[in-house]
Amino acid sequence: MNPKVLIVMGSDSDCPVMEETAKILEQFAIPYEMRIASAHRTPQKTAALVEGAADRGIQVIIAAAGLAAHLPGVVAAGTILPVIGVPMGGGPLNGVDALYAIVQMPGGIPVATTAIGKAGAKNAALLAAQILALGDAELSGKLLAYRQQMATEVEAKDRKLQERR
Amino acid sequence: MNPKVLIVMGSDSDCPVMEETAKILEQFAIPYEMRIASAHRTPQKTAALVEGAADRGIQVIIAAAGLAAHLPGVVAAGTILPVIGVPMGGGPLNGVDALYAIVQMPGGIPVATTAIGKAGAKNAALLAAQILALGDAELSGKLLAYRQQMATEVEAKDRKLQERR
Amino acid sequence: MNPKVLIVMGSDSDCPVMEETAKILEQFAIPYEMRIASAHRTPQKTAALVEGAADRGIQVIIAAAGLAAHLPGVVAAGTILPVIGVPMGGGPLNGVDALYAIVQMPGGIPVATTAIGKAGAKNAALLAAQILALGDAELSGKLLAYRQQMATEVEAKDRKLQERR
Amino acid sequence: MNPKVLIVMGSDSDCPVMEETAKILEQFAIPYEMRIASAHRTPQKTAALVEGAADRGIQVIIAAAGLAAHLPGVVAAGTILPVIGVPMGGGPLNGVDALYAIVQMPGGIPVATTAIGKAGAKNAALLAAQILALGDAELSGKLLAYRQQMATEVEAKDRKLQERR
Amino acid sequence: MNPKVLIVMGSDSDCPVMEETAKILEQFAIPYEMRIASAHRTPQKTAALVEGAADRGIQVIIAAAGLAAHLPGVVAAGTILPVIGVPMGGGPLNGVDALYAIVQMPGGIPVATTAIGKAGAKNAALLAAQILALGDAELSGKLLAYRQQMATEVEAKDRKLQERR
Amino acid sequence: MNPKVLIVMGSDSDCPVMEETAKILEQFAIPYEMRIASAHRTPQKTAALVEGAADRGIQVIIAAAGLAAHLPGVVAAGTILPVIGVPMGGGPLNGVDALYAIVQMPGGIPVATTAIGKAGAKNAALLAAQILALGDAELSGKLLAYRQQMATEVEAKDRKLQERR
Amino acid sequence: MNPKVLIVMGSDSDCPVMEETAKILEQFAIPYEMRIASAHRTPQKTAALVEGAADRGIQVIIAAAGLAAHLPGVVAAGTILPVIGVPMGGGPLNGVDALYAIVQMPGGIPVATTAIGKAGAKNAALLAAQILALGDAELSGKLLAYRQQMATEVEAKDRKLQERR
Amino acid sequence: MNPKVLIVMGSDSDCPVMEETAKILEQFAIPYEMRIASAHRTPQKTAALVEGAADRGIQVIIAAAGLAAHLPGVVAAGTILPVIGVPMGGGPLNGVDALYAIVQMPGGIPVATTAIGKAGAKNAALLAAQILALGDAELSGKLLAYRQQMATEVEAKDRKLQERR
Repeated sequence: MNPKVLIVMGSDSDCPVMEETAKILEQFAIPYEMRIASAHRTPQKTAALVEGAADRGIQVIIAAAGLAAHLPGVVAAGTILPVIGVPMGGGPLNGVDALYAIVQMPGGIPVATTAIGKAGAKNAALLAAQILALGDAELSGKLLAYRQQMATEVEAKDRKLQERR
Repeated sequence: MNPKVLIVMGSDSDCPVMEETAKILEQFAIPYEMRIASAHRTPQKTAALVEGAADRGIQVIIAAAGLAAHLPGVVAAGTILPVIGVPMGGGPLNGVDALYAIVQMPGGIPVATTAIGKAGAKNAALLAAQILALGDAELSGKLLAYRQQMATEVEAKDRKLQERR
Repeated sequence: MNPKVLIVMGSDSDCPVMEETAKILEQFAIPYEMRIASAHRTPQKTAALVEGAADRGIQVIIAAAGLAAHLPGVVAAGTILPVIGVPMGGGPLNGVDALYAIVQMPGGIPVATTAIGKAGAKNAALLAAQILALGDAELSGKLLAYRQQMATEVEAKDRKLQERR
Repeated sequence: MNPKVLIVMGSDSDCPVMEETAKILEQFAIPYEMRIASAHRTPQKTAALVEGAADRGIQVIIAAAGLAAHLPGVVAAGTILPVIGVPMGGGPLNGVDALYAIVQMPGGIPVATTAIGKAGAKNAALLAAQILALGDAELSGKLLAYRQQMATEVEAKDRKLQERR
Repeated sequence: MNPKVLIVMGSDSDCPVMEETAKILEQFAIPYEMRIASAHRTPQKTAALVEGAADRGIQVIIAAAGLAAHLPGVVAAGTILPVIGVPMGGGPLNGVDALYAIVQMPGGIPVATTAIGKAGAKNAALLAAQILALGDAELSGKLLAYRQQMATEVEAKDRKLQERR
Repeated sequence: MNPKVLIVMGSDSDCPVMEETAKILEQFAIPYEMRIASAHRTPQKTAALVEGAADRGIQVIIAAAGLAAHLPGVVAAGTILPVIGVPMGGGPLNGVDALYAIVQMPGGIPVATTAIGKAGAKNAALLAAQILALGDAELSGKLLAYRQQMATEVEAKDRKLQERR
Repeated sequence: MNPKVLIVMGSDSDCPVMEETAKILEQFAIPYEMRIASAHRTPQKTAALVEGAADRGIQVIIAAAGLAAHLPGVVAAGTILPVIGVPMGGGPLNGVDALYAIVQMPGGIPVATTAIGKAGAKNAALLAAQILALGDAELSGKLLAYRQQMATEVEAKDRKLQERR
Repeated sequence: MNPKVLIVMGSDSDCPVMEETAKILEQFAIPYEMRIASAHRTPQKTAALVEGAADRGIQVIIAAAGLAAHLPGVVAAGTILPVIGVPMGGGPLNGVDALYAIVQMPGGIPVATTAIGKAGAKNAALLAAQILALGDAELSGKLLAYRQQMATEVEAKDRKLQERR
């Protein structure tokens, strides 16, 4: 089945974090492709990857990068598909540099930014699912069920806490 | 025509900034609704507004707030529509507080965050347009034309600069 | 005995920190209830918990959350009981995000914010005790004794340091 | 009528901001006293002011200071009355210094911190009112009415925005 | 005479700041070219401009951008000429975003970063001159004279201050 | 021999860091006293300690504290002896809170602030020594010798590095 | 009369701020010298100025600089006189850069740092006076009177506020 | 063979990071010299080292320092050779202090700043190589090959990721 989401990372060191994205997409049975491409070290390859994305059926791109994180913005410049940017933590500035370099895009080329690190990686997948669900009632149902399940889990933890005390 | 985008602001003082969002949506002929609703002062009204959004045909929600900006997250908690959060600048911390309060959403409920202030307000509209364009070839065409126009404008400014010197 | 203080946390991962709050309340024999409820994952349950609080005899609510910490503000929006917010540390920004998302509440809905992490969790309990002591002379006496004991401990440590050197 | 709230400021330059506090207290007919006392320039006077507060019927102290804002913590060290700290903005660091110097109190002596500047000054009064309302049903009623009025105002602004567009 | 330095800006709003760069280059009689090209709005044009730079005799590229300032890094990815990045101030974060987005380049593609705003714009020109002077004894002489002149000016101001007092 | 320097810490947890101060003072044979006294938990004792300092022959006070570090300012308010403040690192904000709470003293009561943590603890002792040396030629000699020794050590490390390579 | 305090600034643009220092020194009749010397543009002159300071009777040096403020540290490296550093505000980072560049001196060479801008400039003078007063009973008396006067002024403002309300 | 690059560090604790610089220079067969010299502890030696650099054939100086990192600026003040500054991470502020103290150089004396820590150390070497390559076609060739190799590595990692999934 053709991938609908393209996950692209600036470095293979981002893989452990971006597995969170992959896990959620698999849970929702959303086909995806996971690639390594650098805004700085392989600019042409990155441009080609992005340029061909829509034609291959990609509908949402999730781009992750750390430090002076240019990848999401560079990807966004090459497509009108919605691009979600995930700032990687780690590094001496704990990801504030990556956050600013992704979220502060000047007017004209948007990047939908999520939280630094694993929380952001997970939410990037959910955001992609929510976008895809606009035209997919079955996926909408799955998202509602996921929300329900999260609520149930919180409530179970709450009950457990009451019993323990 | 039914609105497809709901713009919601925590305060009427956010209006001048969010006019940037409205202007872009109008430019793309995307019908929208602009509302004031506060996560803290009118929580029930906000919840009701969000709950009924999908049924009224809303496909994307853009939520703007400043300071301890809870509105985008609170809105996102009440819907599986994609929610775009715009941190308002101003205030003693220049919008860093609003940025953190919007972008650092914990895993489970995503908010697609854009830049602080006017750049973010403009990009929120463009992001909404890019999401809507996934199922709308005409809108895709307009977005491509808009990109082309931006490029043309940059090139014109570059030529003008060459001539002036 | 009916609880007078409601401790509410956004996630069970906040439990180890909020045990500091519970310990102090127990030390002052202030009955309390400790609950998990999320502003984002269980918004209705959170609203219900807060709405019914005053009727059950709750007089102070302590709300703890991390990252884009909306729980204290959302709780405060649903009650006129005093609400104390405790920013959780941890996460890539070490709790600065949670601090800003709690303390920078816009005018109208106050949250009494304490320090990030364990110091704040402890002081939240003491602040609750000081509020309850306004109408409770016995509790006032205990608080004065607690202050005296802290002073005695500092002096003992000072003496020990003199002897050691 | 005896003051129930003591507002204390480190400098008369804080007056324009702390007028927000006074206005709200007056609106709720809560008697208050407004004083200037410095943690550094008049430490004894400050200590005396705080020490005698409870005996004069003061139930809540609101302390405002800027820069290395020690006043709220120094006040809190001298009383078991609840102390609310308001960080003043202004200065080269826009109040982040004052915020940290007030909110990061070590365990043992709590200060209930509100937002930097006018929003915090207003919320300090509301927080004081919410504390006093624990033993005052009439004040509770006023607070509920105030909340209702805020909601009504937001809704009016929302309607006005709809009409304007 | 062929330009030796290429100044490239992301937006014409950067012109007033980058005039500082131009003025210094003119003072040293270093031929330069000043262009507007955006990493996001005209990525291909930017790539072409950079790719052909060395062949046209360009030896140093100075790239200026604000907010999520990707231009210097994107330029650096396309050439092995030394690239100097100048973070533009302005915007809600006063240029900290641009600074991080330029200086925190991951290993492999260096950008020589200077200070935020006018000081950085001036120093970018001086740095370019110092690089060019490695193979140009006359330019070295001018740089030494410039240093001498700066020292003389400081000494003149010092004398004037002594006389005034 | 009467102590000339008073080292005062807000908590015994600051001891390991402030040992750096003690070591340097011992190295210079400057008699000192090391005390624990809290601005918040033992305000009267702290005031008494400071008030009597000059009479006991103390000439410089070094005060160390973390988080909302009020101790140095509170000490400085109670004496006209020079007061050196050392911000403790640790805590969720890594000492930035302590630095701001110490260095940003408003006009009128100065605190001579050094670096966060061990570097600052060491330099506080050296600064005290430099102050005391103004009236003590022997101590001046020791300080010059210390500087010489530091230079010698750097040069030895440099030689060692040359040999190793 | 020979100057006892040397005020040195990196730029004549620092003069308006450092007038605060001069005013206080004049008020205490402490003879001083005010000089402009740059760590970067006139390093030798700066070194010479500092090297000869002690011999000319200088006892305390106050060094002010902005941005990457190296002057205080460079001055401190050249003398064992106590050096007070004043970070200048202004610039895109509002003086945080200058503060860090002055206060974070590594172990070995202390700089006594005061607040950013005018508050720091004033306190630098008071700190110098407090150091000089260690060997000067008359100056001690003046400092005590100054403290008394500050207290009297705060009390007068407090009384005026009471009367006004 | 005479060294063309001088690497100078403020402390031997910077060695493990600056080995990254050395490794890259060796890979490009660029002769270099690695020295320890402190802006504060050995100012004269540092000045002498820098002053004689050009005469010994040095063409680029790389200076690394942490905390209040003055070394790069002090070195730059003593030469018109291009100076690259590398902020060391570590310390309580994770290198933000060093970054600001290096990059925010006032107009007149430029320092080419790279990223905090190892990424910056590596890029400093590459930047030096790019500067030297302006007059060295062979080195240009090596740099192009290095870029090609980086791209190949990214592509290999990308392929491996595809195979693994």
